[in-house]
Amino acid sequence: MNIIKGYKFSGISCGIKKSKELDLGMIFSEKEALCVAAFTKNLLKSNSIIVSQKHLNRTKKIKCIITNSGCANTACGKNAVKMTEKICNIFAKKLNIKKEEILIASTGVIGEDLPFDKIVQNSELVISSLKNDKRSLINFAKSIMTTDTKYKLVSKKIKIRNKIGTILCIAKGAGMISPDLELYKPRHATMLVFLLTDVKLSYNMMNSIMNNIILPNFNSFSIDGDTSPNDTIFFVSNSIAVNESLNDEEFVRVSKLINTVCEKIIQKLLFDGEGVTKVVKIVIKNCQIEDAKKIAKSVANSLLVKTAIHGADPNWGRILTACGYSGVDFNTKKTNIWIENYQVVKNGTSNNVQDDLVRKIMKKNFYQITIDISKKRNTKPFVYYTTDISKKYIEINSQYKT
Amino acid sequence: MNIIKGYKFSGISCGIKKSKELDLGMIFSEKEALCVAAFTKNLLKSNSIIVSQKHLNRTKKIKCIITNSGCANTACGKNAVKMTEKICNIFAKKLNIKKEEILIASTGVIGEDLPFDKIVQNSELVISSLKNDKRSLINFAKSIMTTDTKYKLVSKKIKIRNKIGTILCIAKGAGMISPDLELYKPRHATMLVFLLTDVKLSYNMMNSIMNNIILPNFNSFSIDGDTSPNDTIFFVSNSIAVNESLNDEEFVRVSKLINTVCEKIIQKLLFDGEGVTKVVKIVIKNCQIEDAKKIAKSVANSLLVKTAIHGADPNWGRILTACGYSGVDFNTKKTNIWIENYQVVKNGTSNNVQDDLVRKIMKKNFYQITIDISKKRNTKPFVYYTTDISKKYIEINSQYKT
Repeated sequence: MNIIKGYKFSGISCGIKKSKELDLGMIFSEKEALCVAAFTKNLLKSNSIIVSQKHLNRTKKIKCIITNSGCANTACGKNAVKMTEKICNIFAKKLNIKKEEILIASTGVIGEDLPFDKIVQNSELVISSLKNDKRSLINFAKSIMTTDTKYKLVSKKIKIRNKIGTILCIAKGAGMISPDLELYKPRHATMLVFLLTDVKLSYNMMNSIMNNIILPNFNSFSIDGDTSPNDTIFFVSNSIAVNESLNDEEFVRVSKLINTVCEKIIQKLLFDGEGVTKVVKIVIKNCQIEDAKKIAKSVANSLLVKTAIHGADPNWGRILTACGYSGVDFNTKKTNIWIENYQVVKNGTSNNVQDDLVRKIMKKNFYQITIDISKKRNTKPFVYYTTDISKKYIEINSQYKT
Repeated sequence: MNIIKGYKFSGISCGIKKSKELDLGMIFSEKEALCVAAFTKNLLKSNSIIVSQKHLNRTKKIKCIITNSGCANTACGKNAVKMTEKICNIFAKKLNIKKEEILIASTGVIGEDLPFDKIVQNSELVISSLKNDKRSLINFAKSIMTTDTKYKLVSKKIKIRNKIGTILCIAKGAGMISPDLELYKPRHATMLVFLLTDVKLSYNMMNSIMNNIILPNFNSFSIDGDTSPNDTIFFVSNSIAVNESLNDEEFVRVSKLINTVCEKIIQKLLFDGEGVTKVVKIVIKNCQIEDAKKIAKSVANSLLVKTAIHGADPNWGRILTACGYSGVDFNTKKTNIWIENYQVVKNGTSNNVQDDLVRKIMKKNFYQITIDISKKRNTKPFVYYTTDISKKYIEINSQYKT
């Protein structure tokens, strides 16, 4: 079975990482492909993002994505933008395409110069390795890893008018994960996400899917609360498998499938987070969306909540405490909190909690915390994911550069 | 030499803590003493704070402070306020004072009921143990400890008109430390701070010192970013050692001494923070105060900055990243960052950093990070303190209730 039509992949080692692991990757579309992108809202931005934005200002249609790991290409010298553009120029000539048809994404240490020579010297190799097969796809997925322990791929097939289309998502990100991305509108991490399809989608459809499905999904989880300057989502559609315009019913089906793919890849990102042993779904009820976001993020990033999750310690008071300092005005005396189906807080106080029963739930590696703010009835529940924090996280991040 | 005039102290074990450590404390002023208080801005508030606020609504003059550790008296049942008031009533009768002359402060696990019987049964003992001597003072300081490994006392003498006055501060707090307190104005943690003096101060002077010296000091550090529902500062003045009204020069001297006492006790709190091995002073320059606060807190609470501090890992890019997602609008290209005197970021990019030199500085257990935002010239630098995060922190907090 084909992995996805019209895209080739490669991932090689060019020596950016000391470990000789794969660190230079490429996605190539046989045909010009429409691209909609989203980038971090961090004021500090990777030079790779700056150059990708320049290119997206000139064209919506791209042919190639270059990636590297081991170096964030961020905050690294006056000439970094020029050098990044020069890399794109060199690749464009070798690929015989326009330089603005190339996008670039980087992940790794901040403040170090992108190793220009290593990348250029290996440009022939990464291009000649391009293939439309599973092994090359996996090599690409591996080439963007940093502290990830597993590569992340999710692929789903969809039948449209007797043709088989594919939604394929490749992602990375285990630390510095608290994505806060916005749609990039031309003319006006580190999590890296490459969401590709061979189904034809109009630019408006792609924008709608980015705004209503992809961004709400990827902005709704946090591993460590640190929003990277490199977070990037490239959503790319060529029209090779399904080249007719979609009708409404087909568009809804494709949208739903993309939602499923996003959910699945986010679960993979969460469970492979740095030192993560547990993932928790936080659901905020009866609260306006902006307030719900603040409360959810306050709980998700509370070190005391994260350590309690880690140790399965039924210290639910910390959840209520984190709601209380979120900056949102609400009545703690009307607040109710459940851990799975067990109500721990009733009207702002202890619901005669039996610690043993709560501990039993908290020993699972995935469960739900529901917080009812009782502020604005009949609002849509807001969902946010968080993880525990373990000694392993401290170990990984205290010696990252050493 | 006297420890402080007109105050007695006691600290006993009444069985709230399983470990049989001291957990019930009292400060008693022979004379009615003026009190100015500040409490957490967390919407969730300890019942001890609610009752103290009620009492301060009735009188500015107090005689007694009751404290307990092991139980936060927060989010714990409908009758908790009444039970807390009842405790004050019982003590008031035994001490032959009005119940509103009693304040109460608690620290410990959230969501568990305050053990009424244990406290009442030991009321005679804690009262009969009251003494004006060093041992009793130390017992009091120990009785408010939770995960603190050392009791915290700072005492300074001041000569005013040939009389010797004292500023004495007792504090506790090692985790759930990100104080955000506001002055409590009648009619209208867990860090506990008891700042006592036997020098006469007017109510206006005390308010001024609270607003301009005590609060800016205690709101300017964070150990884990979690703002407790129990944070309390009681600033108390009887007039037993110096009972004349202060002139301007004397007021300035007393104010400066109180500032020194605050700084010293905060250093003790920081260095005894849960699992803390390093303390860092963050100085934000050329930035409006509200923006500077946001940037400083973003850097101080970044897990990636805290782990880099822990491992003396010269990963300064994380500092710039945390500035970038602070929510403050500024030009990263004009930002400069120093670690002690070594400039790591110049105009938003790497200043040809020699990692070895930076690592050497970061191995110290105390150093300064200076961030020049270059936004608003000639503003007063904003100072904020943070700590590293270690495996010990995870250990302490993942099993707090277990």
